[in-house]
Amino acid sequence: MDQALFQYVLRLGDDGLILGQRLSEWTGHAPSVEVDLSLANMALDLIGQATHFLHYAGQIEGQGRDGDALAFRRDVMDFGNCVLVEQPNGDFAQTMARQFLFSTWQKMLLERLIGSKDELIASVAAKSVKEVTYHQELSEEWVVRLGDGTAESHRRMAAGLDWMWRFIPELFEMDSVGEEMLARGIGADPASFRADYDRKLLAVLDQATLEAPKDQRPILGGRRGHHSEHLGHLLCAMQFLPRTYPDAKW
Amino acid sequence: MDQALFQYVLRLGDDGLILGQRLSEWTGHAPSVEVDLSLANMALDLIGQATHFLHYAGQIEGQGRDGDALAFRRDVMDFGNCVLVEQPNGDFAQTMARQFLFSTWQKMLLERLIGSKDELIASVAAKSVKEVTYHQELSEEWVVRLGDGTAESHRRMAAGLDWMWRFIPELFEMDSVGEEMLARGIGADPASFRADYDRKLLAVLDQATLEAPKDQRPILGGRRGHHSEHLGHLLCAMQFLPRTYPDAKW
Repeated sequence: MDQALFQYVLRLGDDGLILGQRLSEWTGHAPSVEVDLSLANMALDLIGQATHFLHYAGQIEGQGRDGDALAFRRDVMDFGNCVLVEQPNGDFAQTMARQFLFSTWQKMLLERLIGSKDELIASVAAKSVKEVTYHQELSEEWVVRLGDGTAESHRRMAAGLDWMWRFIPELFEMDSVGEEMLARGIGADPASFRADYDRKLLAVLDQATLEAPKDQRPILGGRRGHHSEHLGHLLCAMQFLPRTYPDAKW
Repeated sequence: MDQALFQYVLRLGDDGLILGQRLSEWTGHAPSVEVDLSLANMALDLIGQATHFLHYAGQIEGQGRDGDALAFRRDVMDFGNCVLVEQPNGDFAQTMARQFLFSTWQKMLLERLIGSKDELIASVAAKSVKEVTYHQELSEEWVVRLGDGTAESHRRMAAGLDWMWRFIPELFEMDSVGEEMLARGIGADPASFRADYDRKLLAVLDQATLEAPKDQRPILGGRRGHHSEHLGHLLCAMQFLPRTYPDAKW
């Protein structure tokens, strides 16, 4: 079993799955029908990407687990998503702050994974980057619109960014899995786009008349299964049906 | 199988289980340590009562399900609790409004069930009524203290009562199960204490400088498995561990 590849693909899948599930919580509750649909569409895009990656992870593992088994039958400590994506939706500004920080990173990552030596990763990246480019633009527009909006929308966007800021360092963390994938030409080096990422954030914040939050103690550990308390509650809801009706088919 | 007795005992158990689970959500979050402990103690009392009733329901059913199986392996539609107890905690005032409306009713019910011809119901009622008398007094005191407190605490308690008021009629509903239990000398007739209940509520509201909420469309159906959306989310969290680790022992 190719343990490093399994972990790497699992992390890519878990990022999409967990953020997709979070976004789906907005369905029927968003500030307008158009926004409701755009959030639901982003959720679908991300869950679609996750389905490809998790199905592939199951094949790599070779233990008979498919994408559904990996999504619905793992507990908190076996998830490898970054801690950013499991953060609560909060208000619409907080949701958009999370989306902006994540999609900006994910777009830069996928652009590099298009050149992966792993064919499946390369092809999913090529397909997904179009979707994620749209997520990035949409969330960037909302950061500017709310930041450079009313006093209340400005305050809320600042608070949303303040919540999410401490989860940025994890996105750029390297460990033995990432290093092995990089050496084998399969993975990407996040350090290669850290400066681009920071520049992009500051440019958007400037346009949004927002200041970058003060540096906070970074929260790390999601890739190793150390998650915030929020993930367990998310899994409770996401996994209820298959856990309760293990033999359900549809 | 004594279907009516099974249903009757299940309802008694489910009321305690679901309200106990709700109250336990406050643990670590209450406005003061003393309040935190009193909420946790009420939760323990109610879950203790539920354990007796659900274990007994399993015996009546005779299908090998024990109290744990009934608590952790049923889905929403098989729960027979009243809709009042599954309502969300909201703020502390809303929690206390729910507790006051429920405990006042439960105390009057248990006082009558002490005379039940069913020995187990009679003995659990005799033990539980002391605990529930304390829940009733505690919640009554908080209704008065918050209602006759600051402008904000008054407003919050009024809002909490307003949320919970429409679930009162279900507490006094009779159906074929209740009628059979009454005829067999096992159950109690809630109509026999409706006037006492209403008088008690109005006296406490008067002391709390609160007005009774306007009559609202009654919400019924919990006894027949028609629950509000809140119960599913409560069960997700309550049942996660046994659903995820079906063979866990401790």
